[in-house]
Amino acid sequence: MNWPQDNDMIPALARFHDHLSGILPPRALVTDPELIAPWLVDWRRRYHGHADLMIEPADTAQVQAVVRAAATYGVPLVPQGGNSSMVGGATPPADGSAAILSLRRMKRMRALDADAGLAVAEAGVILADLHDAALYVGRRFPLTLGARGSAPVGGLVSTNAGGTQVLRFGTMRGLVAGVEAVLPDGALHDGLSPLKKDNRGYDLNHLLIGAEGTLGVITAAALRLVPTVAARAVAWVALGTPDDALALLRRFQAASEAVESFELLPRESLAAVLAYLPDARAPVAADAPWHVLVEITDDDPAANPAALVERVLAAALHDALIRDATIAASEAQADAFWRIRESISDAERATGPAAQHDISVPVEAMPRFMVEAAAACDARFPGMRASGFGHLGDGNVHFHVRAARGADPAYWYGEQVPVVSAFVHDLVIAAGGSISAEHGIGQMKRGELARTSSPARMGALRAIKRALDPQLLFNPGKLVSVDPSDVR
Amino acid sequence: MNWPQDNDMIPALARFHDHLSGILPPRALVTDPELIAPWLVDWRRRYHGHADLMIEPADTAQVQAVVRAAATYGVPLVPQGGNSSMVGGATPPADGSAAILSLRRMKRMRALDADAGLAVAEAGVILADLHDAALYVGRRFPLTLGARGSAPVGGLVSTNAGGTQVLRFGTMRGLVAGVEAVLPDGALHDGLSPLKKDNRGYDLNHLLIGAEGTLGVITAAALRLVPTVAARAVAWVALGTPDDALALLRRFQAASEAVESFELLPRESLAAVLAYLPDARAPVAADAPWHVLVEITDDDPAANPAALVERVLAAALHDALIRDATIAASEAQADAFWRIRESISDAERATGPAAQHDISVPVEAMPRFMVEAAAACDARFPGMRASGFGHLGDGNVHFHVRAARGADPAYWYGEQVPVVSAFVHDLVIAAGGSISAEHGIGQMKRGELARTSSPARMGALRAIKRALDPQLLFNPGKLVSVDPSDVR
Repeated sequence: MNWPQDNDMIPALARFHDHLSGILPPRALVTDPELIAPWLVDWRRRYHGHADLMIEPADTAQVQAVVRAAATYGVPLVPQGGNSSMVGGATPPADGSAAILSLRRMKRMRALDADAGLAVAEAGVILADLHDAALYVGRRFPLTLGARGSAPVGGLVSTNAGGTQVLRFGTMRGLVAGVEAVLPDGALHDGLSPLKKDNRGYDLNHLLIGAEGTLGVITAAALRLVPTVAARAVAWVALGTPDDALALLRRFQAASEAVESFELLPRESLAAVLAYLPDARAPVAADAPWHVLVEITDDDPAANPAALVERVLAAALHDALIRDATIAASEAQADAFWRIRESISDAERATGPAAQHDISVPVEAMPRFMVEAAAACDARFPGMRASGFGHLGDGNVHFHVRAARGADPAYWYGEQVPVVSAFVHDLVIAAGGSISAEHGIGQMKRGELARTSSPARMGALRAIKRALDPQLLFNPGKLVSVDPSDVR
Repeated sequence: MNWPQDNDMIPALARFHDHLSGILPPRALVTDPELIAPWLVDWRRRYHGHADLMIEPADTAQVQAVVRAAATYGVPLVPQGGNSSMVGGATPPADGSAAILSLRRMKRMRALDADAGLAVAEAGVILADLHDAALYVGRRFPLTLGARGSAPVGGLVSTNAGGTQVLRFGTMRGLVAGVEAVLPDGALHDGLSPLKKDNRGYDLNHLLIGAEGTLGVITAAALRLVPTVAARAVAWVALGTPDDALALLRRFQAASEAVESFELLPRESLAAVLAYLPDARAPVAADAPWHVLVEITDDDPAANPAALVERVLAAALHDALIRDATIAASEAQADAFWRIRESISDAERATGPAAQHDISVPVEAMPRFMVEAAAACDARFPGMRASGFGHLGDGNVHFHVRAARGADPAYWYGEQVPVVSAFVHDLVIAAGGSISAEHGIGQMKRGELARTSSPARMGALRAIKRALDPQLLFNPGKLVSVDPSDVR
């Protein structure tokens, strides 16, 4: 298949395409604009790119052939999985210079070993399918998130994905036992072997995890599986301060190694959800300033996590650490508690535009941060309303600043949000925190990363990028910008 | 303090020294050959280096000043902690071109937080002191090893140290929550903040862990503390094959999350220890080909891990998975079991010279590897005797090949060991394993690393080294060799 004569694809890309059409099956090369169109915009529809070519290899050898040809012809590649980046991390550049390298056809589950607690999944395996496959052999892959029906393994590893269940087993970084990737020169990094002890120099697996496809493309990963959940207890707790919530978390963690979730939200967030969901009811009668949703599981069907939760809560009530609490009496009630937590973002969005921040601070610093950062924002931006909720056990705050009543949306998003976000990010850095807890940097936070990081850190990131991708072909414009004329 | 006129220190080093003497207190600069001498040879006495200058900074700012000056004057630095490397990783080069950068005076415990389960220790804090400090606040730092009385935090992190207790909590990499380091240009990498979620690009902490001081010098680390052990059960088990041992390990892991050790040894290793230790007795009566030492702990003083161990062993005996077993009836008996395990290396050394290998394979592959690799060695090298023992749960095999009876030691160590080791390493690589499970590469395994690694991997290691240490001044000659004229 040769490139149509009337196409205005840039010459390097056209030669690249012609070369690939000689070595790959036709199915692997997509040039139909209608088929490419859905993959040119991020799912929040903030970033719009262009690409005349989308490559869909079927296996790692084909990925290697593509990457080698890209290096030869100098064509940038944008690795793409589910295209559900929250930071524009998988959208091609607007000038059409790059090709999309889609991993979606690589869906093979290469191995599944219940005894060893390991799965080896290709980059295109969807998270929901990984969950099902693990359950099929009597195991669980514990990480989950909203996009589980579309997010594939390659993207989850490349972005070190988090989600709502990382308190016990960690983010993807803690669940990856091995990585297979194609490096920018087309060489294969075979780091799949699940070694528990391996001291052979710089850890390339950890370098590729969270690199957002800028140092190569992940083609497969070995992933840890854990025992399935045999029983769970979910409770709703009303209390006075974030400090009390942290003290309660420490009591639960001292009593159990299986605290899976510990979510903290202010009174206003609960009120917003109750106003937003007509059939929702407040889980406890007390009108307390702060609320906690806690979930404890057990792998042992004979265990009774509800009894453990009741014991800890009874003691906390006795000590006046908490004001009220209720343990879900059924799975339906547990789901109703979780529905409140999961509706906060939608409920707050319904009250007007807001600047949302995916940030983290050390767990010990989070209670103070939630209170002081909200007060600092309210003082700095009169009329706006700041509040935080989130995963206390992870130090991960969802920090929202709502626009002043009657704010013009265009002015808000165009002028005010960048100012508000820079202010919030400065507070985060001052608290020893991160301006990206789980979404990564992509295009959206590239400027803020450079602004809030030390020259030492930015210098190291740029040096690593140049070292492993000297032609700067992998996921251009994401994470770290390297001007070819830069001197470190 | 100026450099004595009659000294033959090379000119760059002399200028470097003069510069430092103007900015550092005299205590920080050691030039007395007698004081430097103990630090010029590794503790196995295999590598002899030379240095006319040893620098002992008192804090991170002084380290930065030293590193900046080293970059200016082009003086290589050899970071050094306890000098207990097993691979010559901290010995300066023989030509005297480098200065030793000792972290031993930086012994401050900056923070100790029992609630958060975190300690922040400077690079010079000795492991035994860290253990004590953690216990003092009612917590435990779980990693331990033979050199705990001399190995400091900086070296432990730089080498990703392992040891006998990594089954449950992992190697140093799993216990490090943050890293502070001085990069080769003198800039500070401040990665100490213990964030559970942080997606701001390439993970520099993980890159520095296990880099053996070749990318900068670690000055402090945030370390995770875990609950103290309230109760333990130690058992000795006799069984037929390594496969049976792995099946037993899986049963224990299904029953408990607190399997701390699972050591596998062959009949010959036990016999060697019984011959070597006059007062030692076989823990079980059965003369089985393989033996296991298992330790299970519990954080809860009310728990009874011995009952759990007894239940699992009774079922295994009933199913004929094992031949005999005994649970230590006292701490003294538990210690006696451990003494057998810990005496294997000395006992085997007493039977004559041996080539020892610190290797690992995937846990599932270890039973087969132990049997087949020993048989392959015995077939390839008639008269020699190969056997493996080690940490089954980690896939970490101590694989020894003993010299043929009456072998000439000089010929053995000079000519035969390299051939034997290359043969063993090839078997390890074929099994998807690592030629360095825990000791690192240093100078000793640099050639074998290059020989057994893919060009992709070696290219990436060299590119990273050049990117972060473009003057090639940090720990020269260790881990990866980069010829200044190399083109990747």
